[in-house]
Amino acid sequence: MVVRNEEKVLVPCGIPYIFGSLHTSDKNVLPDKMLTDIGVEIKIAEVTKVDVEKNFCELSNNEKIHFEKLVFATGSIPTVPKWLKGGDLENVFIIPKNKIYLDEMHAKLKPLKKIITIGAGFIGVEMSDEMNKAGWDVTLVEVEPFILSKAFDKEFGDKAEELLKSRGVKVITNKGIKEIIGKDGKVSKVLLSSGEELEADAVILSVGYIPNTELAVKSGIELNKFGFIKTCEYMRVDNCSSDIYAVGDCAEKRDFLTRKLNATMLASTACAEARVAGMSLYELSPCKSFSGTIAIYDTAIGDTAFGTAGVIESKAKAENFSVVVGSFTGMDKHPGTLEGMHPQTVKLIVAADCGMIIGGEVYGGSSVGELTNSIGFLIQNHVNIKTLLTAQIGTHPLLTGSPAAYPLIKAAEVVAKKLRK
Amino acid sequence: MVVRNEEKVLVPCGIPYIFGSLHTSDKNVLPDKMLTDIGVEIKIAEVTKVDVEKNFCELSNNEKIHFEKLVFATGSIPTVPKWLKGGDLENVFIIPKNKIYLDEMHAKLKPLKKIITIGAGFIGVEMSDEMNKAGWDVTLVEVEPFILSKAFDKEFGDKAEELLKSRGVKVITNKGIKEIIGKDGKVSKVLLSSGEELEADAVILSVGYIPNTELAVKSGIELNKFGFIKTCEYMRVDNCSSDIYAVGDCAEKRDFLTRKLNATMLASTACAEARVAGMSLYELSPCKSFSGTIAIYDTAIGDTAFGTAGVIESKAKAENFSVVVGSFTGMDKHPGTLEGMHPQTVKLIVAADCGMIIGGEVYGGSSVGELTNSIGFLIQNHVNIKTLLTAQIGTHPLLTGSPAAYPLIKAAEVVAKKLRK
Repeated sequence: MVVRNEEKVLVPCGIPYIFGSLHTSDKNVLPDKMLTDIGVEIKIAEVTKVDVEKNFCELSNNEKIHFEKLVFATGSIPTVPKWLKGGDLENVFIIPKNKIYLDEMHAKLKPLKKIITIGAGFIGVEMSDEMNKAGWDVTLVEVEPFILSKAFDKEFGDKAEELLKSRGVKVITNKGIKEIIGKDGKVSKVLLSSGEELEADAVILSVGYIPNTELAVKSGIELNKFGFIKTCEYMRVDNCSSDIYAVGDCAEKRDFLTRKLNATMLASTACAEARVAGMSLYELSPCKSFSGTIAIYDTAIGDTAFGTAGVIESKAKAENFSVVVGSFTGMDKHPGTLEGMHPQTVKLIVAADCGMIIGGEVYGGSSVGELTNSIGFLIQNHVNIKTLLTAQIGTHPLLTGSPAAYPLIKAAEVVAKKLRK
Repeated sequence: MVVRNEEKVLVPCGIPYIFGSLHTSDKNVLPDKMLTDIGVEIKIAEVTKVDVEKNFCELSNNEKIHFEKLVFATGSIPTVPKWLKGGDLENVFIIPKNKIYLDEMHAKLKPLKKIITIGAGFIGVEMSDEMNKAGWDVTLVEVEPFILSKAFDKEFGDKAEELLKSRGVKVITNKGIKEIIGKDGKVSKVLLSSGEELEADAVILSVGYIPNTELAVKSGIELNKFGFIKTCEYMRVDNCSSDIYAVGDCAEKRDFLTRKLNATMLASTACAEARVAGMSLYELSPCKSFSGTIAIYDTAIGDTAFGTAGVIESKAKAENFSVVVGSFTGMDKHPGTLEGMHPQTVKLIVAADCGMIIGGEVYGGSSVGELTNSIGFLIQNHVNIKTLLTAQIGTHPLLTGSPAAYPLIKAAEVVAKKLRK
């Protein structure tokens, strides 16, 4: 049984597209049929308390439900920084995974013109691009020196910024937001850390999410220093019996490489954790292919896509890993004269001492998602860069780069050459 | 130094597109710059003899070239079956990797209308689709019960056939060609094994290729039973000193799974072999990631693509492997309401006794090529189906299936469920 608050659940990654390509959130609803078809009951209610010792929970309608196993999958909620003056003005929005909120927000945004998006992570970038596409005047503000800086090294972030700008989004980097200035209780300006003021009809905050753990805390469950439910790698909650699990944005994550706790929040990671939990509920399975979270994610701006898997170069260096990197730019079709050809760049991040592939970044066309997943599989299977030199691949004029200049293999060659020196 | 006959070399997999999307072979020329930039000399001449003991070769211009190492990369040539009556008529064409021939063929085809393509492998299918797109009236004839039958199981071949037909190509399966009937020395009809006669202005034979080994044989090099140069896995020619290598369509291949000699001819396989040979010329490297040829290939018909890696189900069964297969059909974007969404099917072929992934077939949109390569990496790294159940992937609305219904993982779940029984 799934117990949830929402009548209708949205496809989380599809949310930015509601405001552009899809036009309406109704086209972005996760179908319940997949669940009900296999016999899962869906109960629309709020769980008010979980008794993790006596294995029952209480619902808002006072119903008590006994369980054999319980999984916290309560997700995350967007944050509004407490220090931010003006965060409570009308037309300041966040992006929760909440259809009702987003529909109201969409309706309110429609008559407005000037939109300021704060925070250039994936959500900020995709929201800005989609809203620009739909006709709004969008300015994206990021405090870091370049956009998407948590997921990509600078050369990729710069490309994304260039592209966003060419499509009409104004991008301001290296400047934080200081205050949202109101007039008659509504947003009218944004004051930046530089002292600059930007006119604004609405502000969209995409400055981070925090785990939604209110219920867990009420139930006596321990959180880690980032506020995530402490779990083991089988997704069992640390300070409970083995009947209590947590998965997704509310559950603890460790970086596969640095082994540090981190705050990765991705639907794909959540699903991998859910599969692990599901397999382990009644029978512990040692067949877990990963230890730690290998964040793999992509974004798309128009026909151009960006993908990342594992660690990026700057992060690896900051963590004191000795790495060798190699990049190669080729094409995603061959010959390059074919219509729709997109340049494709692959960058690989490799441990200098042992040759293990620990990260990759990809720039290209629509095949970037699956190519990034290829790199993800290489990382998860501890593949050595040298074996990539002689790996077999398949190529096709319309679908991939050329076999003689396939960027993933060529990037491996660049790394291998450096490792020989 | 590269010694070759041809002034200009074509991108081999791009050849069908000369007749449709590209309009001309000039847009499908492999640039020499990649080679000359790194100091490779290109000599346009024919090698008439190789002395594999004294390490020199003789050219058509009587020049003698001494070498330290020599690599046979003489490729393959299309076959015209000897028994085929009418194979020598005007307007019967083959598809060699030869710009001059193909340009003449293209010019001759232009005023003609009715084209019969014989043989529905990748080349026959792609030629038929491209020529149909360019306005020719095309009939594709295949002796096997379905098209692309060497690379795909029937359900995938049937989809490809349906698609080709919907685009206007006439497809005749289960019927061979008996004779090409001429009039005034030119093609006028094709007689099928069924007795049927088809009117034809031209016939394109894509019924197979044989290794181009005339020079190797003259040089005393041994061929295997399929006519390929016998080589070891480092691509050294078996009955020579370790100075003589062979790679690509002329070099021996063994199937990675059946261990049988086979006749795979793919540019991507050739490039993998070339990398192995290149790495092993002066220093033997044990870092070879594969043993045997894992044929990985794709094709595209319009916006739909088909990919295959490793063994298909029918072949595995014919070879007495006990396999479990699983298929899942989802979408290549999510939510499915997004423009350009293409259904995506992944079928996995898994060894029943040990769970090793030994093959995969993919149907979908433009991401099929890289998704097929992901499966190729899984096969080459001996990944067990169970580890795929919990593998981490990255997903994005515009680039991949949904994280909860990612066809590769879901197909693995189908297999795992069967394996538990």
